[in-house]
Amino acid sequence: MQIKIDPALVERYIMELAKFGAHGETGVWRTVYSPAWIGATKQFAAWCEEAGLTARHDAVGNVWGVLKGSAGGKSIVSGSHIDTQRPGGRYDGALGLLAALIAIRALKEQFGRPKRTLEAVAFCEEESSRFPTTNFWGSSAITGHIAPGTAEKMKGYADETMADAMRAIGLDPDRIPDAKRDDIDTFLELHVEQGPILEHGGYQVAVVDAITGLRHYRVTLTGTQNHAGAFPMDLRQDPMAGFAEIAAGVIDTATKMGRPAVTTIGRVMVEPNFPAVVPGKVNFVIDARHPDPKARLEMYARHEALMKEVAARRGLKIEWDVAVNHEPCLSDPGLVQTLQDAAKAQGIPAMTMPSGAGHDSQEMASIAKVAMVFVRSKDGRSHTIEEFSSIEDIVAGIRVLAAAMHALAY
Amino acid sequence: MQIKIDPALVERYIMELAKFGAHGETGVWRTVYSPAWIGATKQFAAWCEEAGLTARHDAVGNVWGVLKGSAGGKSIVSGSHIDTQRPGGRYDGALGLLAALIAIRALKEQFGRPKRTLEAVAFCEEESSRFPTTNFWGSSAITGHIAPGTAEKMKGYADETMADAMRAIGLDPDRIPDAKRDDIDTFLELHVEQGPILEHGGYQVAVVDAITGLRHYRVTLTGTQNHAGAFPMDLRQDPMAGFAEIAAGVIDTATKMGRPAVTTIGRVMVEPNFPAVVPGKVNFVIDARHPDPKARLEMYARHEALMKEVAARRGLKIEWDVAVNHEPCLSDPGLVQTLQDAAKAQGIPAMTMPSGAGHDSQEMASIAKVAMVFVRSKDGRSHTIEEFSSIEDIVAGIRVLAAAMHALAY
Repeated sequence: MQIKIDPALVERYIMELAKFGAHGETGVWRTVYSPAWIGATKQFAAWCEEAGLTARHDAVGNVWGVLKGSAGGKSIVSGSHIDTQRPGGRYDGALGLLAALIAIRALKEQFGRPKRTLEAVAFCEEESSRFPTTNFWGSSAITGHIAPGTAEKMKGYADETMADAMRAIGLDPDRIPDAKRDDIDTFLELHVEQGPILEHGGYQVAVVDAITGLRHYRVTLTGTQNHAGAFPMDLRQDPMAGFAEIAAGVIDTATKMGRPAVTTIGRVMVEPNFPAVVPGKVNFVIDARHPDPKARLEMYARHEALMKEVAARRGLKIEWDVAVNHEPCLSDPGLVQTLQDAAKAQGIPAMTMPSGAGHDSQEMASIAKVAMVFVRSKDGRSHTIEEFSSIEDIVAGIRVLAAAMHALAY
Repeated sequence: MQIKIDPALVERYIMELAKFGAHGETGVWRTVYSPAWIGATKQFAAWCEEAGLTARHDAVGNVWGVLKGSAGGKSIVSGSHIDTQRPGGRYDGALGLLAALIAIRALKEQFGRPKRTLEAVAFCEEESSRFPTTNFWGSSAITGHIAPGTAEKMKGYADETMADAMRAIGLDPDRIPDAKRDDIDTFLELHVEQGPILEHGGYQVAVVDAITGLRHYRVTLTGTQNHAGAFPMDLRQDPMAGFAEIAAGVIDTATKMGRPAVTTIGRVMVEPNFPAVVPGKVNFVIDARHPDPKARLEMYARHEALMKEVAARRGLKIEWDVAVNHEPCLSDPGLVQTLQDAAKAQGIPAMTMPSGAGHDSQEMASIAKVAMVFVRSKDGRSHTIEEFSSIEDIVAGIRVLAAAMHALAY
């Protein structure tokens, strides 16, 4: 049973959706509840209706396209987020909701009405690109994880609250609990890989068996600020020397542990940051990820031991807090098997790999079985207007998704 | 022959001069040509006249207090800069001009007219704290090293030109060449150490036998910006990983070479500096100093070799320029001996050490024999309102200076 996906339709949907918030040659800047976002959600709903699905907007602005099944029961849902980085590209998020719609449309056209209800969803927000503390706003409303009053407290980069932003487009923040769902059986998310592993391995698509666990350590190393010329090396408490050792060490630890361990230091702030002054403080963030719960804790223990050892040996004060802590999210093993079987049936070789990035699926995992499909990213580029995936690869990914939905719903 | 220095006078001069630009409890904020600076230079000139010296302001605003010798010939000069950091303390710079005045005043009172002409000088500017590119403005005018048109081109932090700042207080930038001197035989500078070496060694004063050589390497390490989760360690070109190795390595090199080698990384700028993004670029400055001409070049060669090796191994692009390059300035050996003999004669134990900081003396070395006297700094603190030197230590330093001037001029 081969599922046919029309490449021309895929390309048209991607290019037309990208017009809402178009930024530069190939970019998109579409933050939640913005005019570009309103346009995109309306367009998505219109395409759902056009495909014979029933479209509705929920209390936080997620858009659902529903194809009722004949047998009732909980839904099989697929989708991703419609908001973008500032700017991002055409594929991150957008591809997931378009893939869901295209897959359901193709199934309906090629196989008629399903037994199980199929739904395509466009989550309103995932990127934290307007409100830095959101963390999966759309999917968190569906799982019921948004605490009362959150929208009033949450501040955007432009200093407005989430509640204000909702009211400005006619949404009532007091109604957020109405978005909660308890009738979803399965959530499948197609997303661009955002890394180079598929390209490097020569695959178009992957089945994702876990989403990595993640911590952000916010670290402050404090030494003694001094004159760079007059203070001899042997009497310094130089936090830059300690930082350099720690940074080299944690990066080395993750490298030696091998894939899928990753550790990144992307943010460093030096005080006072003058060329001829031994710094008083170095502040930095360690981003460390591993999808295996045990290996992850082992990695954190090694990072923490190194930080303590270096600080003690160099006479530096060290303080840290864990600003972000996401447990790994393991995909449902049965769904992973269903996706692998679907790929095989469609003749599409597929890797199985963990996701190093976070996704709405990890939020949805609290109310449904989840798994993901990755599509190859050119050069592994992500969160840039230069991200790119080919229509051939995207079609392959949608065929795997659609075949799995067929297996689950027909 | 013991030289008597009045501690009460020393303390009064220091505290009264610190009122011009007083900042907080113990700080001074006195940038060149500012109202605070005008007040301080007038006060210094008045004290010179009060001590029986002839005071004059030269074409860039240096203030000279002259005690004519009976035998004529070139002058024996002492002094330092009257401007400060923003804010600095009471001692850095100010102590040198007050020490010169107090020493000449004491010599005149205790030994009458000298054979050689003695001069105390307050250099108008050394700290680059109003115009970041000045570099010894006052002393460079005296040595004739300010190129025509420089004052018109040189911009301050507040965007005014040096020429505007001069005209605003009645100085004519076209007359800068008039400040040139060719009749100075010897320049002696008393300064606070700005480091902890005297305190650590248990000395009040030091004779400075060299001013360190200094380079600032401005380095850019360029890799590939990527997603911190989705990009595996083995496929990254992470400039932070390269920076950490280079920073740890150059600091380790200087530490192992031992005193007086120093290497500092005080300034780091990361692009884009986000916690969850492998950076695209890390920009940093290496400040590396050694007073020995040969050991200095050896240190630079090791730093450069490490940078090249790390960048090549990690697939990073590395670029650098040498933004600052000061050759070491060796003190005149005869003057060092004169200062050591003076300390011994006054019964003041004195270390001999190089200066790790730059000073006007290195500029004056192009037209005169130079050497310096250091006075102990509490905790090695410098370029802060917390810098401190005791009156006892300062008096000891002035006695060494005055005894040396006596040996040279009487």
